[in-house]
Amino acid sequence: MDEHCDQGCQNLRWALALLDGLVAGGMRHLVFSPGSRSTPLLLAAQRQTSLTLTPILDERSAAFFALGLARAAGHPVGLLCTSGSALAHWFPAVIEAYESEIPLILLSADRPPELRGWGANQTIDQTRLFGGFVREFHDPGPAESGAAALKMMRTLGARVAAVSLGNWPGPVHINLPFREPLVPTAECSAESNPPLSLNRNSGHKTTLASSEQSWGEDIDVWTRDLTAMMSGRGLICCGPGTFSPVGESLAPLGFAEALWKCSEQLAVPVLCDPLSGLRFGADSTHRITRYDSFLRHPATAAALKPDWVLRIGRAPVSKTLLNWLADIPTILVDPGQGWSDPNKDVRVRVNADASSFCLWLATLAQDVMDKQTHADWSAQWTAIEQQCAQLTANYLAQAPWCEAHLLTTLLAHLPADDGLFCANSMPIRQLDTWSGGRSAPLGIFGNRGASGIDGQTSTLAGLNASGIPITGVLGDLSFFHDLSGLLLLRQLQRPCIVLNNGGGRIFDYLPQRGLPDFERLWRTPIDLDCGALLHPFGIAHCAVTNGDEFQAALRECVNPSEHQSSGVIEVRIDAELSRRVHYEFWQHIQASQSI
Amino acid sequence: MDEHCDQGCQNLRWALALLDGLVAGGMRHLVFSPGSRSTPLLLAAQRQTSLTLTPILDERSAAFFALGLARAAGHPVGLLCTSGSALAHWFPAVIEAYESEIPLILLSADRPPELRGWGANQTIDQTRLFGGFVREFHDPGPAESGAAALKMMRTLGARVAAVSLGNWPGPVHINLPFREPLVPTAECSAESNPPLSLNRNSGHKTTLASSEQSWGEDIDVWTRDLTAMMSGRGLICCGPGTFSPVGESLAPLGFAEALWKCSEQLAVPVLCDPLSGLRFGADSTHRITRYDSFLRHPATAAALKPDWVLRIGRAPVSKTLLNWLADIPTILVDPGQGWSDPNKDVRVRVNADASSFCLWLATLAQDVMDKQTHADWSAQWTAIEQQCAQLTANYLAQAPWCEAHLLTTLLAHLPADDGLFCANSMPIRQLDTWSGGRSAPLGIFGNRGASGIDGQTSTLAGLNASGIPITGVLGDLSFFHDLSGLLLLRQLQRPCIVLNNGGGRIFDYLPQRGLPDFERLWRTPIDLDCGALLHPFGIAHCAVTNGDEFQAALRECVNPSEHQSSGVIEVRIDAELSRRVHYEFWQHIQASQSI
Repeated sequence: MDEHCDQGCQNLRWALALLDGLVAGGMRHLVFSPGSRSTPLLLAAQRQTSLTLTPILDERSAAFFALGLARAAGHPVGLLCTSGSALAHWFPAVIEAYESEIPLILLSADRPPELRGWGANQTIDQTRLFGGFVREFHDPGPAESGAAALKMMRTLGARVAAVSLGNWPGPVHINLPFREPLVPTAECSAESNPPLSLNRNSGHKTTLASSEQSWGEDIDVWTRDLTAMMSGRGLICCGPGTFSPVGESLAPLGFAEALWKCSEQLAVPVLCDPLSGLRFGADSTHRITRYDSFLRHPATAAALKPDWVLRIGRAPVSKTLLNWLADIPTILVDPGQGWSDPNKDVRVRVNADASSFCLWLATLAQDVMDKQTHADWSAQWTAIEQQCAQLTANYLAQAPWCEAHLLTTLLAHLPADDGLFCANSMPIRQLDTWSGGRSAPLGIFGNRGASGIDGQTSTLAGLNASGIPITGVLGDLSFFHDLSGLLLLRQLQRPCIVLNNGGGRIFDYLPQRGLPDFERLWRTPIDLDCGALLHPFGIAHCAVTNGDEFQAALRECVNPSEHQSSGVIEVRIDAELSRRVHYEFWQHIQASQSI
Repeated sequence: MDEHCDQGCQNLRWALALLDGLVAGGMRHLVFSPGSRSTPLLLAAQRQTSLTLTPILDERSAAFFALGLARAAGHPVGLLCTSGSALAHWFPAVIEAYESEIPLILLSADRPPELRGWGANQTIDQTRLFGGFVREFHDPGPAESGAAALKMMRTLGARVAAVSLGNWPGPVHINLPFREPLVPTAECSAESNPPLSLNRNSGHKTTLASSEQSWGEDIDVWTRDLTAMMSGRGLICCGPGTFSPVGESLAPLGFAEALWKCSEQLAVPVLCDPLSGLRFGADSTHRITRYDSFLRHPATAAALKPDWVLRIGRAPVSKTLLNWLADIPTILVDPGQGWSDPNKDVRVRVNADASSFCLWLATLAQDVMDKQTHADWSAQWTAIEQQCAQLTANYLAQAPWCEAHLLTTLLAHLPADDGLFCANSMPIRQLDTWSGGRSAPLGIFGNRGASGIDGQTSTLAGLNASGIPITGVLGDLSFFHDLSGLLLLRQLQRPCIVLNNGGGRIFDYLPQRGLPDFERLWRTPIDLDCGALLHPFGIAHCAVTNGDEFQAALRECVNPSEHQSSGVIEVRIDAELSRRVHYEFWQHIQASQSI
């Protein structure tokens, strides 16, 4: 691609990428009203051979026409107009589409952000103009160049087309600001570059549990294409999420059982996020938990690259894993409205109950896939997981006591069917790295929706109020951030463990480390005596600095006597030592791992 | 009024009241599109003789017609349509009106709340349909009967008309749900009942500082009407607010000087809220501060009722005062967008700089008003203020030590130009009752925007960061609500005084007192040792229980030595005793006061 094309050409490539995605997602008609600012999109539409263009002068009439067309055709229909009040004329039809669940793709051209709110002509605030009457709103900003930007636009197109056809069909709105010039000054070599083959199915509504199909796509065709996509070496990655809400699944098996059955039939490994609910409980040789460690080894990472990944739930906690997954064609299973695809690699999104889908896939694999081809592949993953577990154990046996030992001890100590809440920032990442798996069930909880360090103490108190005994692991900054939560910690059945390492130590692992005034502006330690702080709240406290003390504290705090409540175990961590241990461990893995 | 009229009649009265207000506010045209749900408003419009009705089939066309009419006529023009997508057709014209600052009154009929979101026909979510493109949005709910409800609707009409013509003219939206039947089944005696005479001016934009006039009303007519309204016995009530922002006023005098000059010329008392900035600083015989005490005396309250009140700023802290002001014709001065009128008594709203308006009024009074007529009136207020101050002093001299003595001591002790922050719930009300006035300036601060008990400690820390030494007075519940704020209290120049009376004692004065489980569900005391709590934060603490101890603590805490920071003075209050003192005091005033 010519990176040095002019603004007009850049606008055109940008618009073309979006339309590629929309067409792949099933859009076949674009109804437009004349205007100037919408020119790049119209130029791009001209280059889409499978797109029918219909000009209608009045935007209101255009919108009702598109509504009728989409209603009868069962495909999403695009609407295009210029900036200003033009798109407001769509509003009545948008409301009708919202209520009648008709897939409309609203493409409004806009002036660039630097002109909005500064009195420029025909410039209004178009963002979220239709309020709650669209299923999604996007404003991707002015055109950018580069492969990643164009990939994002293609994926955005496929996504909104899919959303418009999803389990709650309806209008979606993309607001598209363009900078001038709007027409390429020279010949522009921009070409249509549709997403991978299966994209045309990505808008598919597949409610497998009820076998219901809408928008009239043929399940056999879809299945054949999916099977083709999954013919190479693949893996399942299960992220944070609750996949078998009690009483809501129609599948005959629980999620974990269905998943292990599926991985067995497909002969693929399952990478289990700490918040997937899969690390603790019934074992499987397919369960992989130590990827964050062994994928840091470049040779291992390269050797294990799959041809496809089936992702279930939200993106995983491990950034190592997420980065490694980039550019691998992805099937995403999500029963709700989530569109978890930060890498923009989803080719097929399955909007279905995860248990039902896994069982369906297991049956499919039994019938049509040749699992023997991939037995080696699966065995290779199992071997490296075991090797990594052994290397980790060997390394920790001789390393100074730190969070790794603490978590290992804790996991060995907690009764079956207990819960563990890991706060954000370091604790959940530490758990991810060191937990491994165990056969006794243990519920893992974390606030990964927005991943803040706020409200962690109060959340722990709320979790405990469920009746399940839940141990907390929090960093000192999280703990001090939610001081009002201390009022709620009086009735704990299990300890709240505070890893006191003197401030936000996650920054020690990030590029901010070493910036001027680093301690005061990023690490921000809070100088408070934890024991003295807790005393007036009547919360028991003990401070420990090594493994023996921690084990002793744990024995006392887990299952406190009838008349006592569990308290806070403050673990004083030598953060610098801990940091050295982590980096040494990663070097150790790189030096010792063989594949 | 017949309170037993049917639903249709009730709808009609409701709609009529709204239109009365709109007509009084200057609306002369109503453009409507046919529909059923809007029937009550159309029936009401037929009874307004000064209203021209124009039917236009297409709502979009109707909206642009109204836009043109309002643009040329310079008066607000009403738009009326039925429920469903009908009002969405207005959107393009609404956007144009928003940008061009044209006064449109958008009246959308709606289904009642019980039908919204439950699949009823022609029912969509009409609330805030135009997002940020209207100046105000109101949804007053289905029609109610009774004088207070109708007064509210009349005032709402006058208000939105005024807002549409305000210092930022533009569209306003009132969504009006109606229950069936929409037509009165019998003869309905509902009549037009316009607001008091001056209402027709209430939409007036009066930027006195710049002598600017828009929407072409004659300032002489307006002044004559205002003067007529102020011919009886009046008073000024100055509520919470900052009326002379530094560098923003165009008036030659500061607000307090301008106000005292105005009260002098008008010969009227000024009731000064604790947050008005008028209680402490240059004295005036017109300054009244003890109204919350003496207006509890029924005979006094009746004898002092004025014919009009000029209100400046937000509604006063004193509920006694606010209730006493109900039904008194009110002139409201507000330089901003506030429309502080919980009693719905505002007849004229002056959207002007408060200092400039006071000076203008002082000149006007000098020229055209006869202040001698009201000299007795003013002297009567001064006398009762002085009498109440003496009665209060006499009473407190023999009463057990409580918050009243504490505040009196504190105000006598604080250096001039210091600040005092009173938290919500009890402290600000105690200050209101006991402060009186003093000639040395003292800045009073409080969070009365939403009047929460949240964030009070953090607010105090922020106030102190301004460089002004500011003492805080907080209740124990506020103090314990914002525990995270303790991290910010390390560098105080003045003490933070915590009135620890064991929970939310304001409920002891409210009807909730005595309900089952009152202590646990309303008073909600927090059982924390304040000293132990503060120790780990490095905040000094002392606990006092009487006047001598408090004075000693105050001497130490105000102006701490260079290397020390001021700390927390915890005042342990016997809440039951305090409550008895308050009730006894009010009885004492009622028994002793003479008028």
